[in-house]
Amino acid sequence: MAVASVPFGINFFSTVRQDQKSADVYFDQALRLSVLAEELGLSHVRTVEHYFRPYGGMTPSPIVFLAAVAARTTRVRLVTGAVLPVFNHPIKIAGETAMLDAISHGRLDVGFGRAFLPEEFDAFERGMDESRARFEGGIAAVRRLWTETDVVYEDAFYKFGPITSSPRPVQRPHPPILIAAVGTPPSFEWAGRQGYGLMVVPYLSDFGDLTKNLRLYREAFTAANPGRAIPRVQMSFHLHAAETDRQAIAEATPQMEQYIGLFKASASAWRGRRSSAYPGYEELVHQLETMTMERVQHERRAFIGAPDTLAALIQSAVELFGDIEPSLSILWGNMPYEVAARCLRLFAGEVMPRFAPAPAFARARP
Amino acid sequence: MAVASVPFGINFFSTVRQDQKSADVYFDQALRLSVLAEELGLSHVRTVEHYFRPYGGMTPSPIVFLAAVAARTTRVRLVTGAVLPVFNHPIKIAGETAMLDAISHGRLDVGFGRAFLPEEFDAFERGMDESRARFEGGIAAVRRLWTETDVVYEDAFYKFGPITSSPRPVQRPHPPILIAAVGTPPSFEWAGRQGYGLMVVPYLSDFGDLTKNLRLYREAFTAANPGRAIPRVQMSFHLHAAETDRQAIAEATPQMEQYIGLFKASASAWRGRRSSAYPGYEELVHQLETMTMERVQHERRAFIGAPDTLAALIQSAVELFGDIEPSLSILWGNMPYEVAARCLRLFAGEVMPRFAPAPAFARARP
Repeated sequence: MAVASVPFGINFFSTVRQDQKSADVYFDQALRLSVLAEELGLSHVRTVEHYFRPYGGMTPSPIVFLAAVAARTTRVRLVTGAVLPVFNHPIKIAGETAMLDAISHGRLDVGFGRAFLPEEFDAFERGMDESRARFEGGIAAVRRLWTETDVVYEDAFYKFGPITSSPRPVQRPHPPILIAAVGTPPSFEWAGRQGYGLMVVPYLSDFGDLTKNLRLYREAFTAANPGRAIPRVQMSFHLHAAETDRQAIAEATPQMEQYIGLFKASASAWRGRRSSAYPGYEELVHQLETMTMERVQHERRAFIGAPDTLAALIQSAVELFGDIEPSLSILWGNMPYEVAARCLRLFAGEVMPRFAPAPAFARARP
Repeated sequence: MAVASVPFGINFFSTVRQDQKSADVYFDQALRLSVLAEELGLSHVRTVEHYFRPYGGMTPSPIVFLAAVAARTTRVRLVTGAVLPVFNHPIKIAGETAMLDAISHGRLDVGFGRAFLPEEFDAFERGMDESRARFEGGIAAVRRLWTETDVVYEDAFYKFGPITSSPRPVQRPHPPILIAAVGTPPSFEWAGRQGYGLMVVPYLSDFGDLTKNLRLYREAFTAANPGRAIPRVQMSFHLHAAETDRQAIAEATPQMEQYIGLFKASASAWRGRRSSAYPGYEELVHQLETMTMERVQHERRAFIGAPDTLAALIQSAVELFGDIEPSLSILWGNMPYEVAARCLRLFAGEVMPRFAPAPAFARARP
């Protein structure tokens, strides 16, 4: 079978306690790895919005971190993975993303998410049941603020205008939009119908359900946007590369255990809580309790191993999920900087070339 | 009279229309000038929070711009001048400023402001009459989020906790706080009593009133914080330096006219509007209508001229206002980058050395 051509980006989703790695050290490492990723030919740098806890909590604003990345790089795309309209006024999101689009000279992709951690909703005094309305309303408001002047807007949560958002984004009509989706079929269908890109974290997903949801997304995209190419789906996977599988697994195991433990701590507020807007989420903690490094490996939920193993895992993901752009999580858990940098160099040197587009003249030969 | 020792920073307060200078060009120029300012020995880079209009509206988030500056510099202080608690949730301000403090390795000073433009209050659905309560409450909440864990907070506007803000700031107990004040005596007194730094824009102030207010600030500071040195007052002035006064005035005049025009356009919503929280603000438009380049020069409201003229203006400001740290507005109006860079080099080469601290051995000699 022909090996697919695949672009790869990197993803910072912090899962380290600040008594292990203080924020200044973390950001210093993440910025150096971003510069290295650009030098090595990776396609994007992405980060998340989370609060309060070591699970993602280094970046309560992905935009602030990406502004620093923008100032140190010139080519790599910058991806919010994701910003959360439920916790941010659309005027702030429109203005801050336009600033970042300008500072980066048009390298921004804006991923929007619905958020899912009860503690965050409680702290911002937002009802989880209104999350879908705030999400869709927020995206609609931001799009109008990016593209129109003298905007008059009103929904159940905000009322403003006529105002003109400033600054204006560099990319026209606006930066590409991606939608973070997990498992709800209508979310995938909605993203496709709207013509948006898609970002998926398959870590806890049933891969059979996910392939069905991706089909829903792609079919809805094509039906509603005839003639437009379906964007590659941005899919997050933990990456750890080493010379041998044994070494990769040995280095990754304590970090994976930390990741699972911190994810569980953040999700634990789902115990005994239900929201009609989040069917099945109360099962999250249970799913996490059965997750182990062995299961991650066995079920191909992460890219961990020697270069040959990684190439096989990626090829298998492409065969299962179709055209994807992996967003490779690095610097997860308490991974030392030197190990993360070595992993990225090895991946870029030994694995990425196997998924590079073949030069036209080479492909033309038998 | 002995010449005072004075540090100087730069201040970006955009007053350019985006049909004159697009946002990507503006930020590219501002970032290059920030790097140049660090190389030339200036003390800080500062920017403002404003929305919707060419008057300050390039930076709806000062934090996003300063994160880019942080990534390109290593020594210069970064100053929000100011962030506005009335439009930003304290959890966002605490988290984003802590990120910036970490990314910059502890170089952040956080200036807080009350905001004063009616259009901004309307768009964010905030009453101007509650601005003082939101300002003081917001600062109190941010301080607690920076310094405490498991914070439980409640005021008339927000209720959250127990939560622990993430990431933790690098500077302990927290980044220095500055308060933006304009003309209300109790605001100056309050800032001093709290032990905060002070930032003042004297552009429209009665200088007699301002010196009285500065005395109030310094007396309140000393009374409430015995043994602590009173911080230098950060004071904003437009800067334009050229080889001759004539050239400086010729280059600055069209930009000053643009600045006044755009300020007037943003402040025009004060016509016919009053708020008990903003006594006298409805006079703003009237004051602006009588402002001209001649008056600015005559009343020493800006630093514009040849090096000798600038040194005299600065010396006179120091004699009037005491220990200050000027925040020099550059790249104002539609100033071309090359002119702004030349101005900064000339200022750093010919004016700053006259206000540099004398080496100890030189001072010891007669």
